[in-house]
Amino acid sequence: MRFSVYIPENLERPAPVLYHLSGMLCSEQTFIQKSGFQRWAAHYGIIVVSPDVCPRVTLDVKNNEIEANGQSYYVNAVKKPWSRNFQMYSYVNEELPSIIQQNFNVDRDKQSIMGHSMGGHGALISALKNPGKFRSVSALAPVCNPSQSPDERLILKCYFGDDNKTMEKWDSTCLVADYKGPELNILIHQGYNDVYKDDLRLESFISACKKAGIAASINIEEGYDHGFYFISTFIDQHYHHHAKFLRES
Amino acid sequence: MRFSVYIPENLERPAPVLYHLSGMLCSEQTFIQKSGFQRWAAHYGIIVVSPDVCPRVTLDVKNNEIEANGQSYYVNAVKKPWSRNFQMYSYVNEELPSIIQQNFNVDRDKQSIMGHSMGGHGALISALKNPGKFRSVSALAPVCNPSQSPDERLILKCYFGDDNKTMEKWDSTCLVADYKGPELNILIHQGYNDVYKDDLRLESFISACKKAGIAASINIEEGYDHGFYFISTFIDQHYHHHAKFLRES
Repeated sequence: MRFSVYIPENLERPAPVLYHLSGMLCSEQTFIQKSGFQRWAAHYGIIVVSPDVCPRVTLDVKNNEIEANGQSYYVNAVKKPWSRNFQMYSYVNEELPSIIQQNFNVDRDKQSIMGHSMGGHGALISALKNPGKFRSVSALAPVCNPSQSPDERLILKCYFGDDNKTMEKWDSTCLVADYKGPELNILIHQGYNDVYKDDLRLESFISACKKAGIAASINIEEGYDHGFYFISTFIDQHYHHHAKFLRES
Repeated sequence: MRFSVYIPENLERPAPVLYHLSGMLCSEQTFIQKSGFQRWAAHYGIIVVSPDVCPRVTLDVKNNEIEANGQSYYVNAVKKPWSRNFQMYSYVNEELPSIIQQNFNVDRDKQSIMGHSMGGHGALISALKNPGKFRSVSALAPVCNPSQSPDERLILKCYFGDDNKTMEKWDSTCLVADYKGPELNILIHQGYNDVYKDDLRLESFISACKKAGIAASINIEEGYDHGFYFISTFIDQHYHHHAKFLRES
């Protein structure tokens, strides 16, 4: 597994760490090349870790499952042959932080998580399934309710089989209903002109948050779509958001 | 030929235009995806045009000339078969500005030019060969003296033959010696750790500027190399520079 790490200059003490999860078709290179986050990570003194989006194994699968390769949804697959390698949730929440803590000067009590699209989904489920682990969570155009989206289900079926109960355990909109724990400090942006908005199902997530009494700052931005121009435009707001919580003692 | 155009929102009158020339292996997409210039172009109200780096024709050439394809050095080639398509100097200085002026709301008296690496060379020769045409010129890690660099000559030979006299007509360090015209307003950044610095020959350009009494702001930046992280770090300074001259009436 590959990942990228950004370390601000002149760190004098263990620094907070922000995990960034990318979307489909990306790698550990994409966010560091296209988002312009470095200016803000440097400004706020935050170490930033961005893993590759999935295991790079080619599995011997039928045609209808080929699409699931090169993705991951940041879940732990249970169906063969995916279950062996596609354990990205455990990787992102356990193995990778452990590697980071052993090798970089991070403050393990100060971590946050964010992501884009499929990675926004990964960030949200990670925060929702681990109350208190992350000080804040943010997402750009996140997949919010994949168990109810026909397109997302095509992939999830590969990892889980056609099993609603399991899918719902990895679905932010479902998870938020049962969330118990400290404030999540959620920030979300989505482009009003996002061509994938029917798949993202942000409205379902908003409703579920309201019903559960979970606060979230959700911003729909006119004129923006799903891509990296959208990300690079709003990246500063996500760093301001995380810095606010990561820099508290 | 493809090119990208960035247009700031809410322009109320014809806007200044900044041409950006990219380096080898780039296209009209690279600068707009990786540099983060949009923030500054929006801030200063500058239209930004970034053409592809060369004609996308595949010529039937011998092995030793294959490398010249996918490049251009922003010159007008004289040797066959390059001379037919590889007229990038004329394209950048005449054809493209004419297309831009006919199709976008630009102020034709307010234009500047910048570039990276091979594109920095293109920007400098364009400014030096057209006194008064550009209000300012800037370059990140520009190729400054290709007629004296063995590696650069390998490519220039394809376009010109092994002819020093012609090469020198397309070489900033040679052109600066004879420059007569208004202030060029040159800004240059180069990484101290640029692996190509022996090919770039910035020192020769600095000497030639001093000898000719041409003012130039030249900045060598410790810890930076030749790539897009270097560009995205210093891009703001280049926009501040051009804005200063483009916004004067």
